[in-house]
Formats: sequence, structure tokens, C-alpha cells
Amino acid sequence: MLSFITKTVIQMALEEDIGSGDITTNAIIQSNEWGIAKIIAKQDLVVSGLEMVQYAYDCLSTGIFEFKAQCQEGDLVYSDQVICEIRSKLSTLLKGERTALNFLQRLSGIASNTREYVNLLHNRSKPIIVDTRKTTPGWRVMEKMAVRAGGAKNHRMGLYDGILIKDNHINICGGIIPAIERVRKHISHLIKIEVEVENFEQLADALSANADVIMLDNMSIDQIHQAVHIVKGKALLEVSGGVTMTHLEQLLDSGVDIISIGGLTHSAIAVDLSMEINSLSQ
Amino acid sequence: MLSFITKTVIQMALEEDIGSGDITTNAIIQSNEWGIAKIIAKQDLVVSGLEMVQYAYDCLSTGIFEFKAQCQEGDLVYSDQVICEIRSKLSTLLKGERTALNFLQRLSGIASNTREYVNLLHNRSKPIIVDTRKTTPGWRVMEKMAVRAGGAKNHRMGLYDGILIKDNHINICGGIIPAIERVRKHISHLIKIEVEVENFEQLADALSANADVIMLDNMSIDQIHQAVHIVKGKALLEVSGGVTMTHLEQLLDSGVDIISIGGLTHSAIAVDLSMEINSLSQ
Amino acid sequence: MLSFITKTVIQMALEEDIGSGDITTNAIIQSNEWGIAKIIAKQDLVVSGLEMVQYAYDCLSTGIFEFKAQCQEGDLVYSDQVICEIRSKLSTLLKGERTALNFLQRLSGIASNTREYVNLLHNRSKPIIVDTRKTTPGWRVMEKMAVRAGGAKNHRMGLYDGILIKDNHINICGGIIPAIERVRKHISHLIKIEVEVENFEQLADALSANADVIMLDNMSIDQIHQAVHIVKGKALLEVSGGVTMTHLEQLLDSGVDIISIGGLTHSAIAVDLSMEINSLSQ
Amino acid sequence: MLSFITKTVIQMALEEDIGSGDITTNAIIQSNEWGIAKIIAKQDLVVSGLEMVQYAYDCLSTGIFEFKAQCQEGDLVYSDQVICEIRSKLSTLLKGERTALNFLQRLSGIASNTREYVNLLHNRSKPIIVDTRKTTPGWRVMEKMAVRAGGAKNHRMGLYDGILIKDNHINICGGIIPAIERVRKHISHLIKIEVEVENFEQLADALSANADVIMLDNMSIDQIHQAVHIVKGKALLEVSGGVTMTHLEQLLDSGVDIISIGGLTHSAIAVDLSMEINSLSQ
Amino acid sequence: MLSFITKTVIQMALEEDIGSGDITTNAIIQSNEWGIAKIIAKQDLVVSGLEMVQYAYDCLSTGIFEFKAQCQEGDLVYSDQVICEIRSKLSTLLKGERTALNFLQRLSGIASNTREYVNLLHNRSKPIIVDTRKTTPGWRVMEKMAVRAGGAKNHRMGLYDGILIKDNHINICGGIIPAIERVRKHISHLIKIEVEVENFEQLADALSANADVIMLDNMSIDQIHQAVHIVKGKALLEVSGGVTMTHLEQLLDSGVDIISIGGLTHSAIAVDLSMEINSLSQ
Amino acid sequence: MLSFITKTVIQMALEEDIGSGDITTNAIIQSNEWGIAKIIAKQDLVVSGLEMVQYAYDCLSTGIFEFKAQCQEGDLVYSDQVICEIRSKLSTLLKGERTALNFLQRLSGIASNTREYVNLLHNRSKPIIVDTRKTTPGWRVMEKMAVRAGGAKNHRMGLYDGILIKDNHINICGGIIPAIERVRKHISHLIKIEVEVENFEQLADALSANADVIMLDNMSIDQIHQAVHIVKGKALLEVSGGVTMTHLEQLLDSGVDIISIGGLTHSAIAVDLSMEINSLSQ
Repeated sequence: MLSFITKTVIQMALEEDIGSGDITTNAIIQSNEWGIAKIIAKQDLVVSGLEMVQYAYDCLSTGIFEFKAQCQEGDLVYSDQVICEIRSKLSTLLKGERTALNFLQRLSGIASNTREYVNLLHNRSKPIIVDTRKTTPGWRVMEKMAVRAGGAKNHRMGLYDGILIKDNHINICGGIIPAIERVRKHISHLIKIEVEVENFEQLADALSANADVIMLDNMSIDQIHQAVHIVKGKALLEVSGGVTMTHLEQLLDSGVDIISIGGLTHSAIAVDLSMEINSLSQ
Repeated sequence: MLSFITKTVIQMALEEDIGSGDITTNAIIQSNEWGIAKIIAKQDLVVSGLEMVQYAYDCLSTGIFEFKAQCQEGDLVYSDQVICEIRSKLSTLLKGERTALNFLQRLSGIASNTREYVNLLHNRSKPIIVDTRKTTPGWRVMEKMAVRAGGAKNHRMGLYDGILIKDNHINICGGIIPAIERVRKHISHLIKIEVEVENFEQLADALSANADVIMLDNMSIDQIHQAVHIVKGKALLEVSGGVTMTHLEQLLDSGVDIISIGGLTHSAIAVDLSMEINSLSQ
Repeated sequence: MLSFITKTVIQMALEEDIGSGDITTNAIIQSNEWGIAKIIAKQDLVVSGLEMVQYAYDCLSTGIFEFKAQCQEGDLVYSDQVICEIRSKLSTLLKGERTALNFLQRLSGIASNTREYVNLLHNRSKPIIVDTRKTTPGWRVMEKMAVRAGGAKNHRMGLYDGILIKDNHINICGGIIPAIERVRKHISHLIKIEVEVENFEQLADALSANADVIMLDNMSIDQIHQAVHIVKGKALLEVSGGVTMTHLEQLLDSGVDIISIGGLTHSAIAVDLSMEINSLSQ
Repeated sequence: MLSFITKTVIQMALEEDIGSGDITTNAIIQSNEWGIAKIIAKQDLVVSGLEMVQYAYDCLSTGIFEFKAQCQEGDLVYSDQVICEIRSKLSTLLKGERTALNFLQRLSGIASNTREYVNLLHNRSKPIIVDTRKTTPGWRVMEKMAVRAGGAKNHRMGLYDGILIKDNHINICGGIIPAIERVRKHISHLIKIEVEVENFEQLADALSANADVIMLDNMSIDQIHQAVHIVKGKALLEVSGGVTMTHLEQLLDSGVDIISIGGLTHSAIAVDLSMEINSLSQ
Repeated sequence: MLSFITKTVIQMALEEDIGSGDITTNAIIQSNEWGIAKIIAKQDLVVSGLEMVQYAYDCLSTGIFEFKAQCQEGDLVYSDQVICEIRSKLSTLLKGERTALNFLQRLSGIASNTREYVNLLHNRSKPIIVDTRKTTPGWRVMEKMAVRAGGAKNHRMGLYDGILIKDNHINICGGIIPAIERVRKHISHLIKIEVEVENFEQLADALSANADVIMLDNMSIDQIHQAVHIVKGKALLEVSGGVTMTHLEQLLDSGVDIISIGGLTHSAIAVDLSMEINSLSQ
Repeated sequence: MLSFITKTVIQMALEEDIGSGDITTNAIIQSNEWGIAKIIAKQDLVVSGLEMVQYAYDCLSTGIFEFKAQCQEGDLVYSDQVICEIRSKLSTLLKGERTALNFLQRLSGIASNTREYVNLLHNRSKPIIVDTRKTTPGWRVMEKMAVRAGGAKNHRMGLYDGILIKDNHINICGGIIPAIERVRKHISHLIKIEVEVENFEQLADALSANADVIMLDNMSIDQIHQAVHIVKGKALLEVSGGVTMTHLEQLLDSGVDIISIGGLTHSAIAVDLSMEINSLSQ
């Protein structure tokens, strides 16, 4: 079941590509022939976005339509492997080709990128790798799904399902302690409080105000070790800010609980895919 | 004036991030204070996406709202420079922060990436660099705007405003010549015919059928030179398929007219930005 | 596959006619009886709009629904002939009657009107008859489909898929030559340039600036002949402005390439149709 | 205040014409110049649709926007008279030109057509002329507004605000009397019952079942006179079905109350208008 | 067939409850198991809202989906009785549970509340009980359906399908007589005129202006009797304003035609329901 | 800033009441007169819904529009007090009257109902009273706002921002312990786990699986006391299920942390309001 926003974005995507009509296909295909399309990996990749491909073609299809995945979200697929097959009218297959591929190539790009980070954990259960809200606008739910397909976990989905007190909030409130106090008065009993700290003074404030999670923002490896030592498990510790693969390896045994990496989504590049379309009436 | 699709995507983006409410900001900001936000470059970059930032905050704002750009689409901006300022309610500025930055960081990422390719042309008027339809679904018009901001030109916007006969079309028609003939019967007198060729036999067919533009798909540098020699200006020649910066340099004086690069959009990564928010009532 | 805009207009059309409920039908039909509806031509006509009828009833139907066309888009149908049959709940057939007929009567009106003009060509391949953008707002794609069903061709679909430099543009640019120059700098390599001229001076400018297509706006038959003589095939020539059937006959052998007729759409009147609905449970 | 459906249709109309961008205007107008547009009558006409022109330009405009009507809905305007002026950005004026004109030319076409029929009444208060539901789908509210501007009155807006028992209903119920009985059980105390009759037997049934309004469907002038004689004011009498101007004149003193004419809307043709656009910065 | 507005509200309702995902169910149910849900009455009640339950689950379901009602709109159902069964994916059943129940509990609450009033009529055909426009915004059509399920009738659906001249209108017009005169000039021949009166002077005006229906607003039982005596059947009489069950009983033989009760909708409380969900794969 | 869903519901609400036009007001008010409307309390009440009134009139208004609240969300207002004033066109004020009142009367009804429960706490900080998801579909965010205006707190907004493992989940998983384990593997580090228990065995399971919050479902006062004794603060305790005012008083010193009351929303009835509209041009 796709969310309302995801469905809307997929519908807009079809509209933006096809608009008033696919003038090439309309000129070439005059009949009601049926066809089959195969999406093929042109590199090794981790799959994500199958449901978007299916929904896009479901929107376009009139009459019979079949979607058969040859693999599942999160599967590692090798170059030249078939990812999925779609049966519909030949003209429909041609009209949806680019949009379907564009969804799959971007989401599989995120899943593949995430998997590279996750592999560095060598199955450790701690720290966990999580994403951020630095996602493509309109794509939040899809990109967070791709992150899970890649093997990492999700931080909050949006501003509505988690408290994260950041630098601008702290400035406006005049400090971490008053900020946490104000928040505690309002939030639901089901939600934890996370606060971002930039130095040890703020860290001490966060601890004294009983933050549930403390985000160490852009600290050095040394500072992070020191923070783990100070916190001693009294709060979950999240490391954030420009974490590369090298940093990640240095943090594996640091004792931090969570490492958030914006690059999982904002610096992922598309994987290479192609679609092969054939007529079924020959 | 933003397109219907772009407006819809921006509205969905706000909805996906804020949803039922920004629970951190709602807890912290109880008053109707006004504030000012500055978006600041954290690296050198080419700006694109100012109109999206403005529209996102326009949707969120009630009452007074001001947007002041300190630069224009396509401007090169240096690290620590202020890109734009927004005045609105303090709570509104906080709620829109991530969405506004996510638009600007992705579109400026594309513009910056494009500029690197364009700089290799050293102001040549030929070949031109163009984008492809390998864009983020829902973002076509925005990403093609970013490509122009980066200094390259746009290929067709979608399936509706240009003819491009591709491999799947050719297979289904049983060859380039019948494909072009069918298309010529249907299209408007205002639109040219482009066809994708993979070998010299197809190239000969394309020429004999009077294609206006011929796309050389995934050919080697040598093959491309040979194709230029064969075509002799009887059609525009476009090179396509995995063009890197190195390839681009080798093609500068090859005589081809157009070089299309999917990587302008599908492999661009976000630039680094931050937003600084201050109260105006102090 | 209907476009997003067309689907939206059909949904709005159902909403505007049925709104909070068909109070006559709701009072009369209490059961879940099934029925069959036949749409019958009450005059000779050229059919267009079958897909709109089908989609409208598809939106209304719950459970079983069948649509069977007895003819195709563009077919000439005689008075009293059945155009299509619909099976659905009896109450659904009654609720959709007027909306379905309203689509079919207007679009078939345009197709029939167009066919009258096209018949005057006696199968000549030149000149071609094309429509204009003087269509019913919201109905562009549908009305251009009806024009094709009538046997004419389409000019550009909108402002996005073709260049046409008109009087207001020329005035603002200070002449045809600067206007064409500005345009040439920006457009895609796939799109031709058309310019509207009102006199021979402008015609000379258009030729010297290498316009691909020149539209002769509201010129007399004599002026048109003279223009053909001047242009000598160096550009396609389009005649536009108040072309009636009489004018059309005078232009058949004039040598112009394209004749655009706004009246195909803006002066078409609805054809006469009726719907006969019967219960299937008797 | 425009209805939801009307606003949606206007937004779709802008989207269908402008789509991904007005490529001619975008190439020609690079500045932020302001301009003024005048819509000018090119024939004598009755004005309708001013609010649609205003809303269309309001949707397109960013920043300053002014709309000044030089006449009112229903005014008779002569050839070459200015109907309204719009001030906005020059590029905005150009982008909205065709859509604005298309609304005004169709609605004024209906108003002008209606006025011709209404003039035949020579200010009689009886019979009244009313429209039908044979309107352009999506345009119901707008076209009924144009009919009022032309001086006629509206029949019901849709299936939801009036009872009209028609041939298909009567067949399904097995007669007029059971049909009226069923309806009377369900309807609100605020709504009258109208029934369509095709012969004198049905007329007798309608009277005996106390219909409030009786529609004489496709009867000859003679039959209509006879019906008036039979009914003797016990119900309102409506004449319907292919009423031309000639018929209308014959019916003026027949004693019928209401004459409904589908042709007011379904056979109206567009009036001739033009838009003159000038820069304000010269 | 649900109205556009009702469908939109149901879609928004699913979106507001599920949003970016049902995090409990997504964590617990990983498989594609099928399940069955039963909605069970936890008190005696009159059923309304079955179609909303069906549509909500239809929106959520992918693949097989079955809805089987065990009773009909308006049926009296006893505690512990099964109202309907739904078969779909187990995860889908869980995601839609609360939304489906929330529709059914509110609409059945209105139907049950209405039935209590209607029972006081002891099958009299006069007076009739009708609802008002004091409904939950967005729910008008649904709540009026629930009122009918409860056995009462509907007053007008909205401002568009009935004339009701109220206090504010009368003040602005300077009296009932001019108000009725203005209205009579504009309305369709199918619609009656109702006017609200607060005293006997206004009542006299309403009669003299030939109102079709007169609403006695907040009058005492005595005043109502007096009004019936004055009107003597020359208009329908409606009693309105804070009518309780006690008042209703006193009015049964008063001779008034219509009693409108806002409390049918605005003071109904939800009935008690539960949903039992089981896996089908065990 | 209203949420997307709330805005959509308000727009649908206006559409459902006004639809194709307010035929009474359109007939009575022909001019462009300005007016002022006052919303007046007809009973003592706690205000909620001001922003909905403002947005509804903002949607309707063209040109000047002013909204002035005389009180704030959550204020106690006495009978006959003015709650807010609106200035707009007289016709606009009349068209929006019922919709505006319907929002305010329902939301203030919930706020007033909630306040009665909250007053029983006599400013205790524990237990807190919270709402449930038993809200009017489409109104979740509005009704939860009204609950806060009444002085209670919100439980989770939807299925997306809090974990609550309920009876159906437990059955499907085969027990509380496996259910909690599955959930813990998937959820974000920011979200707590709540589980519903119906007996002491389940309570023991919940404790052993380290649930953060335990909901005691439909337990007697005695059982609740026993549960508090068993849990000893190792988890937050929520009491749920048919809590009346009497129960609430018995639970005040029981040691439970949270009392959730569905009746805050599902059994609230509308407060009594009226709107007085006057012309400003006299």
C-alpha cells in the first residue's frame, strides 16, 4: 500500500513525461498488440523501488496488466540479471519505460549506496546506521524504504514523529535546558527527546536535562570518544555530520549507538538499468 | 510562474516533512514572533532552485512574508556567502528549513555538476551539451531548469515535445526506415525527427530516410569520427551514452553537434548548505 | 490511456452533473438491477469521444461494467445506427447518461465538422489542414483527438511543444529578425521555428532569418499567391485567419503547405445523439 | 466566488496550454518588464466570462496584478470596443493570452447566442426561455452563467437540484403514475416534480398524478396548443426539443410557460476577440 | 456510487491515520498472509456507513478484496451481532481498522439517534422529521444518508438546492416581502420558496408574499398552534429550533407539516463497535 | 499553518454546502456591499476552531477580508459573548455562515467536553488525560487540537508516530513477548513501545519484555490498583476503555500515569452558536 504522497508523485511523474501524449510511440504503434518488458541490471546493485514500477504501470494500463518481480526489495542482483517483467499493451510499455526506470535507478542507487556503508559494520548490532531528513522532496517515504532495503535503519520520518532539538531551536530558547523543559511539557508520552550538541558544555546540559538521545554534531573522533566516556550510557549517543566510510570504520568500536549519514540519500547516484521490450503477438 | 506539477511536488514535500505538525517547534515556539532566515553556502557552488525555496515558504506563511535573493539562478557563489534571506514567523522559518534546503541543495548540485562539464567547452558554440530524460520523477522541469542554470541546454522535456526513435521502437517496426516513415506521416510540421543508431548500417538507413538528427548510441571515439565523416552535415549528430569528462574532452573537435549526458542529473550529488535562523523581536 | 487533465475534466464533469446525488433516479430505482444502454446517432456523423464515454462510466460503475463500441474513432456513422453499448447497474446508466452524451456530441461535432473541410481536399497530400489552439479550455487533448478523427492534422498542442512567434512577440522584440535570433539561442535542437507575418516586408525578414515555417496571417488570395512565389520552398508556408470552405477551395492549388482553421474547434456544434436504457432483469 | 469545479477547470486549462513552459515567450522575454493587455471585441457581442479571465491571470501572476473590466456580464459590446485590461508581467500576459481568450470567446458566444433568442420575446414575462443540461462537460456553472448573461433563465443545474422524470425512467417504472408516486415518497418538501410526456395519454397521467411541471417533448405546434387547452393551468407547461427561432416565434402566444432550448449552449459558436499586449517600461 | 467529496474525505481519513506507515503493523506482519475481519456491534444500534467501510478498504487493498455486509443500511442490529466481514491482506485489515470503525460508529450513531426520534411518530405520515445543515463539515452527504437510514427525511442538501430565506437575509432586504420578491425573480421554476419567521407579523408577510413553506423559528408550543390556525394550509409549516423528544411529542398532533431537528446530526454520539481480525492462513 | 488534510477538508466543506451556488443569497444580494459578521456564543463554552473559521472565509473572500478573534483557543467564553468578527463582502459572509459555524460548534464542543474532564484533575500533574484515535475521519488534527484547547494531552496522532501493540496484533503474533520482540527490531530509536494488556498474565509478559508503556484495557478499579502495585514504576501505566467522569475520580490517586478517554472526541456534542451579519454600507 503506497502512501498518498507517493502515489501523487508517481502520477505527477507520468504526467510530466507523457503529458499530452508520447508522439513517437503514438505514431509507430497503431495496433492493440500486447508486449512484455524486462528490466535488466547493467551493473551489480541492491534492488529497491519495485512497488513504484508496478504502480506506475498500473496507472498507465487499461485492460490486462501483469507485474512479476524476479527478486525482492533489498536483494543483491548482478549485472545482466532480469529484475522484473511487465506485461501490458506494447504502447503502454513504451510510454512508461523512462519513468519506471527513473524510479528504480534512483531508489536502487540509494539501496546500493547504503549497503556499502552497512557492509562495513560486519553484522555488528551496534552502532546502527540511520538516514537523515536530507532526502529528495516528495520522495521521503520512498527513499527511507530504499535505505531499509540497503540494510540501514530510519531516523524519524519527519518533523511530526520525533523530537530533535537543533541549533536554531537552542539559540531561540536560550539554551538546551530551557529547550528540553519546554518540549517535555508538550510531547506525547510515547516519544523520546533527542537534542543536538556541539560541545561538552551543551553535552553536560543535555545530560542534566535527561535527554533520551544526544546527537554529537560534527565532532572529531577524539571528541566522540570523550563524549562516550562522559555519557556512560545515560543517554543514547548519535554521531552526525559528514560521516564518510573512513570515519565510519573509526567509529565502529567507539561505543556510540547511532551513526546518521545524510549521504545515504543526498549523495547516492543512480544505478544503470535497461528495459527490453518485445511484442507478444509475433 | 511554477508549473502545476512543480507546485504539487512542493506541496507534497511540505506535507511529507511537516505532516500533522512540527512537534519540536510547536513545543518550543509559543509566540507569534517574527524571524529572519539566511541560507548560506558551505562550499563553492552554482545556485539553482531559488524559486522553489520562495514558493515553499510562501505556502507555509500566513501574514507577512518576504523573500530576498542575494544572487540569481546560475550564479557562482562561494563558501560562506549568503544565498537568500527569508522573513516570516519564527515558527514558519523553522518548519520549512529542511524542505527549503533539500530543494536548493539538490538543484544547485545539478547546476554545479553541469557547470563542470560546460567549463570544458571553453566557450565553444559547438558541440553543445544537453541533458536527458534520466531525471528524478516529479522533478523534470526543475532539474532541466538547473541544467540551464549550469550552462548546458535541454534535450526534449518529455515524450510529448520531440520525436526520438529508440532501439525498442526500431525492433518493433522492423527497422529504422519503416519507423521513420510511420512517424513522418503523423507528426506536426513543427517537429524534427531524431533516431538512435547503434551501427553504421543503421546510420545509413537513418540518412536515407532523411532523419533530422541522428543519435550515435554508445559508440567509441573512433566510430564517432567515422560517423561524422559519413554524415557530412546532412543531419545533426548527437553522441550519447556514458559520456564522462574525459570522453567529453576527446569529442570537442570531433565535429559532432550535440553531446547528451545523463549524469548531469542522475549522478549529481547535493551541495552543502545551512540555514541560520534568528528572532527579529530581540 | 487518458491524460491527467482529461481524466480530471471527466471527473469534474460527473461531479457537476451528479453532485450530491441524482434525486430522480435514487427515488425511482431502489434495486440493484442491471441494465444496458445504447447510444444512437440521430443524424449522420463522424464519431469521436468513445474513450471519454467509457471512462465516465468506468468512474461511476461499481462491480461489473462492460463497454462495447460498435464503431471506431473517425468512422462515419448513419442516423439511427448504434454507436456503442454499455452494461452496468441500471441506476448507474441513468446517472451517467447526460455526461456521456455531452462528451460524445461535442467531440463528434468537431470530427464531423472537420471531415467536411477535409473532404474538400479530395485526398491531396498538400496542403494539409491543421487545427489551432482555439479550443475549449480543459479540452485541448480531446478536441485535437477529434480533429484527427475528422481527418485533419494537429498544429502544436500548446505553448510548450512548438515555437510560434506572433504579433505581440514581434512588437515587443522590435521586429522579426531580433525575435528569431533570440529564440534560436534558446530552443532545443529538435524544434522548428515558425513566425507569423502580416506583410511582405515581414515575409522578407522571416526568410532572411531562416524561419522554418512562415504563417501568412489574414492575407488575401492574391497576396498568398505572391508569397508562395517569393518563398519558393525555402520555408513551409501556412495560411491562417478566417479560412472558410470557399477560401479553402481557392487555396487547394496555391502551393501553400498548411492551412490552419480555428473554426474546426471553435465553431463546431454538437451532433444529435440519444441514449436508450433498458433493464436486463426482465 | 468561483466554484471548486470551475477553478479546477481553469487551472487545468492553464496547465494544458502552458505545461512545461511557453518556449517562445521564455526565449524572447528575459526581463521582468511589466505590461498591459487589452481584450478587444472584433464583432458585436454580449459579454460573459470576465471572472474566468480574471481568475486565469490571477493564477499565473506573481507580484502585482490588476484586472479592470470596461463592461459587465451581459453588456452588449460593439466591435473594436475594449472589454477589459490586465496589468501584470509582460511574460505572464503572453502566457495567458490564448487561455483567457478561449474562455471569453466561448462564454460570450453563448451569451450572444442566447440574447438573439431572448430578443424575440420582446420583454414578455411569459414564456420564459431556459437552458438545458446539454452543456460542455466541466463548464456547467460557467455556461449557465453565460445563459443568464444573455438574458434567459436556468433550468436545473444538475441531477441533484431538481426532479425531471424522463422517458428512460418512465419505461423502467412502467408508466408515469407509478414513477411520480415513487418520487413523491422520497423528495424533499422544497422540490417540485417535473415529468416529460410524449403524447396525450401520458399528459393525462401526469395531470392525474399532480405533476408540478409537465414537459412536452418534441410535440408539434398544434399538439402544444392542444396540450395548453387540456392542462388549463393545473401545471406549468414546458416545451422542449429542437426549438429554433422560428418555432420560438410561433410559441410566443401559445400559453406555454417555459421553453427550453439546448442550442443555447450546445450550438453556440465562439465570438471573435483579440488581445493587444504592450510593454509598460517603454 | 460515492460522491467526489465523500471519496476525498475517505482518502484524507486514511492518509491522516496511516500517513507514512503503520509502524506497529509493518514491524509485526512481514508476510503476505490473508485475513478476515468482522465488525461486531457492542450495543444495539441502527446501521449506517457500510459503503464507507467498503470504500476505505477498497482504497487500501491490493489484490483480492471482499466485502460482505450481514445487514443493510437502516437495519436494527443487536449487541454482539456481526455487521460485516472483510477479507484482504492481514496487514491491510489492521491498517484500516480504526478508520473503518470511526466512519461506521459515527454514522450509525446518527442513524440510531434519528431512529429514537422517528419512533415517537408511531408511523404517522405527518409531521415528518427532517435534518438541518448542522452537519460535520465534509460529511454532509454521509450524515444525510445516515438520517435517512434512521428513518427521517432530508431538508435541502446545501445552499444550492433549496431556497431558505433566513433572519440575516430578511434584515438585509428590509423585510420578508421584498426578500421573497427578489428571490422569485431569480429562481428556477422547479424550486419552492421557504422563509423563516420569528413572529406573527412576519408570518402574515410570508403568507401575503405566497411563500411555499414557512419555518416557525423557536416558537413556543402555543405560538405554533396559533400559527397553524392562521396559515390554514396555505403554506407548508416547518417547526425549527431546539426541538427535543418532549417537544416532539407535544407537536405530533399540532398540524405542522415538518419538524427539523439539528440534534439528529450535531448531537449524535458514536455507537460502540469492535473489529476482530484473524489470519486465514492457519 | 493548517495541514494539507485540514485544508482539503475545509475546501470540501465549502464545496458541499455551496456547490453550484447559494441560490438564496445570489437572488437577494446583487451588489458588492461590504458587511460584518459576529459569531456569538449562545452558551458557556471553551473555544476551539478559530483558525478553521478564518481559513474558510479566506477561501471564500475575494478582495478585502479581515478576521478578528476576540478570544483565543482554549478560552472559556460566556453566553452572549462575541467570539470573533469577520469583515468581507456581505454575500460572502452569508455563504460561509453555516460552514464556519459547523466547524466552530463541533471543535468547541470537544474542547468544552474535554475541559469538564480536565477540571476533575484539580491541577494534578498526574495522571494526565489523553485522547484516542476515535476521532471523526478527516478531522484528526483538528479534534486533537480541540482536545489540547480543552486542557488534555494527545496520545499518538496516528499509526505512524507511535507503537501501540493491540489485541489483534498479539493474537496474530502468538503473544505479547514475540510481538514486542518483532517491533523492537524495526522501530526508530526515538519511539517508545506501548502494549495493551487485558489480564495479569499479559501484564507480566509486557514487563518482562520491557514495554515502555502498558495500557490496561477495560480493567476494573481493583485490577488497576493491583496492576500499579505489580508494575512499580517499571513502565508507564495507561488506563483505557469506557472511562466516565465517575471512573476518572476514582482513578485520580491510583498511581496510574495516563488515562485515555475516547469520549473526549467521539461523544462530544456541538455547542450552540449564532452568527449576526450586518451591512457596512448603511
